[in-house]
Amino acid sequence: MKKYTVGIPDEEFIRGKVPMTKEEIRILTLAKARIEREDMVADIGAGTGSISCEAALQATDGKVFAIERKPEGIELIKVNAEKFGIENLHIIQAEAPEGMEQLPQLDRAIIGGSGSHLEPILDQLDELLKPEGRIILNCITVQTLMQCLNYMRTKENYSYETIQVQVNHWEQVGPYDMAKAANPIFIVTCVKNK
Amino acid sequence: MKKYTVGIPDEEFIRGKVPMTKEEIRILTLAKARIEREDMVADIGAGTGSISCEAALQATDGKVFAIERKPEGIELIKVNAEKFGIENLHIIQAEAPEGMEQLPQLDRAIIGGSGSHLEPILDQLDELLKPEGRIILNCITVQTLMQCLNYMRTKENYSYETIQVQVNHWEQVGPYDMAKAANPIFIVTCVKNK
Amino acid sequence: MKKYTVGIPDEEFIRGKVPMTKEEIRILTLAKARIEREDMVADIGAGTGSISCEAALQATDGKVFAIERKPEGIELIKVNAEKFGIENLHIIQAEAPEGMEQLPQLDRAIIGGSGSHLEPILDQLDELLKPEGRIILNCITVQTLMQCLNYMRTKENYSYETIQVQVNHWEQVGPYDMAKAANPIFIVTCVKNK
Amino acid sequence: MKKYTVGIPDEEFIRGKVPMTKEEIRILTLAKARIEREDMVADIGAGTGSISCEAALQATDGKVFAIERKPEGIELIKVNAEKFGIENLHIIQAEAPEGMEQLPQLDRAIIGGSGSHLEPILDQLDELLKPEGRIILNCITVQTLMQCLNYMRTKENYSYETIQVQVNHWEQVGPYDMAKAANPIFIVTCVKNK
Repeated sequence: MKKYTVGIPDEEFIRGKVPMTKEEIRILTLAKARIEREDMVADIGAGTGSISCEAALQATDGKVFAIERKPEGIELIKVNAEKFGIENLHIIQAEAPEGMEQLPQLDRAIIGGSGSHLEPILDQLDELLKPEGRIILNCITVQTLMQCLNYMRTKENYSYETIQVQVNHWEQVGPYDMAKAANPIFIVTCVKNK
Repeated sequence: MKKYTVGIPDEEFIRGKVPMTKEEIRILTLAKARIEREDMVADIGAGTGSISCEAALQATDGKVFAIERKPEGIELIKVNAEKFGIENLHIIQAEAPEGMEQLPQLDRAIIGGSGSHLEPILDQLDELLKPEGRIILNCITVQTLMQCLNYMRTKENYSYETIQVQVNHWEQVGPYDMAKAANPIFIVTCVKNK
Repeated sequence: MKKYTVGIPDEEFIRGKVPMTKEEIRILTLAKARIEREDMVADIGAGTGSISCEAALQATDGKVFAIERKPEGIELIKVNAEKFGIENLHIIQAEAPEGMEQLPQLDRAIIGGSGSHLEPILDQLDELLKPEGRIILNCITVQTLMQCLNYMRTKENYSYETIQVQVNHWEQVGPYDMAKAANPIFIVTCVKNK
Repeated sequence: MKKYTVGIPDEEFIRGKVPMTKEEIRILTLAKARIEREDMVADIGAGTGSISCEAALQATDGKVFAIERKPEGIELIKVNAEKFGIENLHIIQAEAPEGMEQLPQLDRAIIGGSGSHLEPILDQLDELLKPEGRIILNCITVQTLMQCLNYMRTKENYSYETIQVQVNHWEQVGPYDMAKAANPIFIVTCVKNK
C-alpha cells in the first residue's frame, strides 16, 4: 500500500453505509490537531474510523483511542485499521462520555460526534487533557457549535479558534464543469494553556 | 522545534510582505498532492516558500525545487528552509517556464502562481511528469482556472478534479463570535495516467 | 429619480461612515419580509435607513417605523428618506427595546441590529405582531443567531426558516476576474401563526 | 392572491419536474435587472417561467417575452402566468437564438439557460438591447461564465459585474439546526453604455 505523508483519500477507506467525514474536512481536522509522534489521542464518535486511522498513522509512537457506540462503526474501524496495518489503535465500544474512564492522559482529542452529550464529554476531556493539549470539534449544527463556544468561554485556561469550511466540487458533465456543494462544517480548535 | 506530522501553522513561517497561501489552503493543496517520501517535487511560483518547505519535510528522501521570480521571495524561501532545517530544497530564481529546464523528471508539481504563463508551464510539466504524477494548481481567477481546465480537457492522458474552498474565520469580538470571510480558492488536481 | 420595482442599488444611498447592509442582503431580507402595500413595518437598528427606505417604498399605503440609537444614523435616515421622496417613514431615536412603546400593531419587523437586547426586543415584537406577521433577523454572530433560534423554539406560535448567505464579488483586475469574499450573513425569517 | 411587492416564494409556483431557479437566486437576479414599469424584457431559457412571471408583474406597463424550447416548460409558463393573472407575458417556443427574431427592442434580458448557444444569443441581444439596457446571466458552469466574461471583455460598450452566491439552508432536525448547502450560482450583470 502507498504511504502518503499527508492525507488518505476517501476511496481508500472501507465505509459501508456509515457516514464518513469527507477527505477535505478530515485533513483540516487533523492539521488543526497538530498531532506529534508520541501523542495519546482520543477520537470520540469515531464513525468509520477514518480519522482514528489517520491519527494512528501519525502518532506512530503514541496511541489512538476510538470511541464509537454503533456496532457497524466498530466493525468498520477494525477493518480499516487492519487494512492500513495499524497496531496502535484501541477501540472502545461505548456512547461517550461512557467508556472515557478507560482513557489515559491525552495530548489530543477529536470529537466527530457527541450525540448530545457534548458538555459531559468536554468535562471529562478537561480532566484528561495535558497542558497545551488540543480538542478539535467538528460540528454541523448551530447548537453543538454554541455549546462548545459557551463551554470554552467559561474556561479561563482555554483559547479557541473557529473556522467554517465549505467545499464545492466542480463535477465534469460533458463539456461543462458544474459546482456541486457540500454542506459547510465548523471546526473548533480548543487549546489548553500551559 | 516541534515536528508536526501534518500541517505547519501560518505563524511559524517568516513571510515579510509577500502574500502567503493560508494554512487551510496549504494543507489541502499538500493533501491533494499526496507526496511520497522519495518524490521529486516542483513548486512553481513559490512565494514565501511555505508550500515548498512543507513539501520538503514530506519528501524526506526526495527533493523539492522551488521556482520564484521575486528576490524577496527567494530570500524568504531561504530563511524559511533554514528555520525548518531543510536540506532537500533547491531554489531557482526565474519566472517560469524559464528555469524549468533545470528540473528533473517529476512526481509532483504544485503551481501557486503562473504569472500568466500557465500554458507553457503545463507544456513543460507534461514533459517532465512521470506516469501517475500529479499537478496541483491553486487559483483565484476564473481565467487561470479555465486555462487549466481547457488544457486538461484536451489531453487524453490526464484526469482532473476541481474543488473550490471557502473558509470563514469566526473571530471573537467581546461576547460574540463573528464571521470573517476569506476569499475562495480553486484547487485543481491533475493526474497523469499510468 | 428612477423607480426600480425591486431593489435599490447601494450607490443610491447616502451612507457616510455608518455600516450599511449590502445590496444583496438587503434585497433578500426584504424578499423574506414579503411586505404588502398596507403593511405596518418596524425596522429595528435601522443604521443608514437603507432597509427602512426600501420598505417604505413598498408599503406605500402603510408605514415604516425606523428605530436607531445613533445620531449619525438618524441623520442619514432623514437624508435618505428625503432623497427618495418618502413620506411614510417615522423615525424614533432610541436604543430598542426603548422607543418600541411608540410602535403600532405590526405586520412586519426587520431587525438589523439588536445591540445585545434581542430577547426583550422579541418579547415586545411578540406583543405587537399581528397573526401571520413576520420578523426578519439579519445576524452576523453565532450568539445572536442562537438567541433567536432558542426564542423561536420555545414559542409554539411561530415557525422559522434560517438561511446563511455568502456573496463573492468577482472583481476585474487587468485581464483577470478575481474573487473578493464578503462576510456571510444569517437571515432568520420568523412567521407568527394565524 | 396576495400581492407581494418583492419576491414570490417558491411554493407559489407550479413547477412539475422542471428545475426552477430558487427563490433567493430569482430575487437577486431580478434585483440586478432593475426592471422599470415600462420595460420590454426577454427571459431566455425560461424553464418554469418563475422569472418571467415575476418580471411581468414588475413591468406592468411593459412586456415580457419568455423563450423556452421544452413543451413541459411552455405548459408550466402558461399555467403560472394564468395563476398570477398575468397578461403581459408572451411565450415563444424555440431554442434560442431561434425565435429571437420575434423580439422587440429590449430594456432587459435575463438568461437562465443558453443551451451552449451563449455567443449567438449575446450577439442577438446586443442588436436588440437599448442603451443602458441590462443583460443578467445566471450560470452554474465555469464554461458559461467564461464565455460571458470573454464576450463582455471584447465589447467596449458594456461593463459588467459578477457575483457568486451560495445559500445554506439551516434545517430543523429535532433539537438541532443543520446546514444544507445549495449549489453556488454566478450572476453576471452586463450593462450597455449610453
